Amino acid sequence: MPRLLGSATGLACLASLGFGFGAASLLDAKPVTVADLLAGSPAADWRVPNPDDTLYLELPRGRVVIELATTAVPQHASNIKSLVRAHYFDGLAIIRAQDNYVVQWDDESHRRSLPAGVRPAVEFTVDARAAARFEPLPDRDLYATQVGFLDGFPAGRDPRTHTVWLAHCYGMVGAGRDDPAESTGAEMYAVIGHAPRQLDRNVALFGRVLQGMEILSTLPRGSGEMGFYTASEPPVPITSIRMASDVPQSERTPIEVLRTASATFRLVAAQRRERHEPWFKHNPGAIDLCNVPLPVRTPIGH
Amino acid sequence: MPRLLGSATGLACLASLGFGFGAASLLDAKPVTVADLLAGSPAADWRVPNPDDTLYLELPRGRVVIELATTAVPQHASNIKSLVRAHYFDGLAIIRAQDNYVVQWDDESHRRSLPAGVRPAVEFTVDARAAARFEPLPDRDLYATQVGFLDGFPAGRDPRTHTVWLAHCYGMVGAGRDDPAESTGAEMYAVIGHAPRQLDRNVALFGRVLQGMEILSTLPRGSGEMGFYTASEPPVPITSIRMASDVPQSERTPIEVLRTASATFRLVAAQRRERHEPWFKHNPGAIDLCNVPLPVRTPIGH
Repeated sequence: MPRLLGSATGLACLASLGFGFGAASLLDAKPVTVADLLAGSPAADWRVPNPDDTLYLELPRGRVVIELATTAVPQHASNIKSLVRAHYFDGLAIIRAQDNYVVQWDDESHRRSLPAGVRPAVEFTVDARAAARFEPLPDRDLYATQVGFLDGFPAGRDPRTHTVWLAHCYGMVGAGRDDPAESTGAEMYAVIGHAPRQLDRNVALFGRVLQGMEILSTLPRGSGEMGFYTASEPPVPITSIRMASDVPQSERTPIEVLRTASATFRLVAAQRRERHEPWFKHNPGAIDLCNVPLPVRTPIGH
Repeated sequence: MPRLLGSATGLACLASLGFGFGAASLLDAKPVTVADLLAGSPAADWRVPNPDDTLYLELPRGRVVIELATTAVPQHASNIKSLVRAHYFDGLAIIRAQDNYVVQWDDESHRRSLPAGVRPAVEFTVDARAAARFEPLPDRDLYATQVGFLDGFPAGRDPRTHTVWLAHCYGMVGAGRDDPAESTGAEMYAVIGHAPRQLDRNVALFGRVLQGMEILSTLPRGSGEMGFYTASEPPVPITSIRMASDVPQSERTPIEVLRTASATFRLVAAQRRERHEPWFKHNPGAIDLCNVPLPVRTPIGH
């Protein structure tokens, strides 16, 4: 019984069905997989993240690539660029890793001053009329009236209050805060477990890990309360955080992200909602926002 | 801004409110935390898992304690006891670690024969009339008509077909299979990411990790397709799997699990559904089955 759960990932069957297939083929006898869909996707369905909105978190074990959600949290995005360009994070450390929850990094000792222009802000939601690019999913949700994507980030929407907010899915990155509600972006955390959606509209999520997530998710868990590292556990040092646009072209990570507004993406979500592979004996017929894949790839030629 | 997200875990405030508080105190000006609830719980609200239904997965980095769900999957539970008592798993290895999905261990080389009495079975669901102990939650769900707990394990229920099944929450452990639908328990996987609920009713989940989950969740991810380890990545050896009842009393892990049928558990779920701590600016007012805490503790005196 080799490779169990293979079909479950949708990446097992690499047999290409070629280009140009549409939604109808989802009903064919031989169902397409996500790998098929990606292999057959037109180049225009992919985008290169703006290097001026991309962070490189450099750790001893490698680079974590984070895309900033500038529409959702413009002040935090601006703050983070100022912090990064002032090398604020360099030499700090990851101070917390709580299993099935978050990893966190910030200036635990409060020794560093914030660069000019960094202003605390409350950006839990954004006005939906300003966020006209919200792309709804047909799926229900437990925490939001409506869910979908905003500029490629998983998001919720409340049609009544005309607000949109990013959702705490695995791999999302947010601006930690104490009480009161303001945050700057100088404290950062990444979700490494089951989506803690109760944090939605309570923290300013500012981005998503596009690559290197496994570097964060495999960090040793801290033995202190809430996963904080204790004196006997050496914190993981942060070599640096840089904007991709400040790194020489030759040192940038080549990366492409599937556009959530693309036909390919809609097919990927549909394939994961209705499972027609022979391995599935029960078709779920539904999908949780945080289970919708957000494909990333290395461009051809790299 | 120290200890961000502290209140989010519900474990920050350790100030005890003493014993005997009820649901009414959830509406008090000073909301109780999960830690308060657990500190004030009566001893009768806790249970000691049956050592004859408890597995010790021994890895070089420590022990993973797994409780078997004997009501949900009686044949798999029986198989697993036979496999464990034949030392079937000893010297095998963890062969797969896929980020945000599963870790898996089995006899990849297919060299080992199954002990007598191990019979392939399909145990995706159990008859709800036989599973009379199902305790419903009031919360909605995307994948099931109703959700709740069966013998302390997260579960779904379909009132129409009178079936109950375990849910793929973080830390659940299942019997991997290929196609067709039968499995024995000789292939095992544990969920280490956002709940892959699309697998519900497609695999026989047979238990839950009670302790040592971080040993599995921090395993290096495999670089092969679907997270399988490749030749250059040494698999993590399994020292042994034993039934707790076969281990001398002095070497057993003392552990207690909060009864899901207890008043304390209902208060814990309610506390996590309605967030009244000052840190929360938006009350979620809902909870995902897989976000309901299933508290485990070391008994007092150990």
